Amino acid sequence: MLIDVILTPAEILRLPERDLSSATCVIFDVLRATSSIVTGLAHGAAAIYPVLTIEEALATRGTLPEALLGGERFGERIEGFDLGNSPLEYQEGVRGKEIVTTTTNGTVALRASEGAKRVLVGALLNLDAVAAKLVLLAPREVVLVCAGTFAEFALEDGYAAGALIAELPEAELTDAAQVALGLVSRFGSALEALETARNGRALLAKGRGAEVRYCAGRGVLDVVGEMRAGKVEACPKVSG
Amino acid sequence: MLIDVILTPAEILRLPERDLSSATCVIFDVLRATSSIVTGLAHGAAAIYPVLTIEEALATRGTLPEALLGGERFGERIEGFDLGNSPLEYQEGVRGKEIVTTTTNGTVALRASEGAKRVLVGALLNLDAVAAKLVLLAPREVVLVCAGTFAEFALEDGYAAGALIAELPEAELTDAAQVALGLVSRFGSALEALETARNGRALLAKGRGAEVRYCAGRGVLDVVGEMRAGKVEACPKVSG
Repeated sequence: MLIDVILTPAEILRLPERDLSSATCVIFDVLRATSSIVTGLAHGAAAIYPVLTIEEALATRGTLPEALLGGERFGERIEGFDLGNSPLEYQEGVRGKEIVTTTTNGTVALRASEGAKRVLVGALLNLDAVAAKLVLLAPREVVLVCAGTFAEFALEDGYAAGALIAELPEAELTDAAQVALGLVSRFGSALEALETARNGRALLAKGRGAEVRYCAGRGVLDVVGEMRAGKVEACPKVSG
Repeated sequence: MLIDVILTPAEILRLPERDLSSATCVIFDVLRATSSIVTGLAHGAAAIYPVLTIEEALATRGTLPEALLGGERFGERIEGFDLGNSPLEYQEGVRGKEIVTTTTNGTVALRASEGAKRVLVGALLNLDAVAAKLVLLAPREVVLVCAGTFAEFALEDGYAAGALIAELPEAELTDAAQVALGLVSRFGSALEALETARNGRALLAKGRGAEVRYCAGRGVLDVVGEMRAGKVEACPKVSG
């Protein structure tokens, strides 16, 4: 298994040029898009549709009239949408529902990875489930995609990628994977990493510390989301 | 002082869009372009002209008939050029000379940073001199540019950026700067980092271990190169 990491949004924009046909991608947007997606799936959401624009969200809901609309622009709920981008909103009332979601970086990263053999949705919340899935699948090539924030690398995504790499000690690592792994030993805990990250500090300043603490909950959700044809659903459990 | 790090070549291509007019950039291409440049300056080279293409190198030499031509493509000396890209070639016979150089990533990163208030040439070899210069200049914004290898992040450049950040403990760090700093504690020595890096392993496999060991020589050169109007010269010494 060779693990590479896409560190920056500038690289994500070029992902569609890369041959990912034999790669398994794992997308991380820890604060907060992928944390919200895996939370929704863990609480019984039927499927989540990551879309790029507000217009595409409205058009998709046109074909799925029962679906909820979720997402953010500049960190805030979009006017007229049912849900924002806090994972705490993806717990109650999502069972059996379809959710259409659009965010600044996370959904862009998911869609940019569409050419991959498999696209998994990663977060700290489901990190151990994703690691178990990768051990089971044993893909030759794994590409961990750090969604970032606007045009910048986001520490929490790199930290989560590194924490996943630490669970796969037999893997061969690219230089970018080495740099993500280097983040793990730099922080005493996932929460410390998230509270150091620019996004984490911004959420704390807005009084949203509960979301940061929730997203730092390593391995609390036993669910892996997989995107196929633009639709994310929970994978069958690895065991049990 | 706020320190940011440009981690990937994809970001370097977008650097000209960024307002760097109040920033001091430090460019790292440790294996080997910036190590060669600072070695040349430390051995008395008068000036080094980083250019983007072989054609531009030949044209520049047309205006500087005494200049040496240096650089690489795919790691090897360019046919008809006087020097390759090994820093060991930039020691003897460069005193008083002008050198025109073109490499795959290092010269691209230098030229992409031209809009900065100052552009310094960094390597592990002159890391302490660069740190002292930054302390003296005390710029509000520092952008460390990791030149990378072709389209990919290069570990040795991130390691050098992190080692420089470790010398500036008062600075505020972006998330990308945090990730570079995380690399420092991951390796027991600069040599270990360089021998882990993909470029380092490729040079070792070619029997060029002496170059890798030389480039890992932290702080052995007391010289800082600064690029102005496309020309790199040694800065006056900070002290002594």
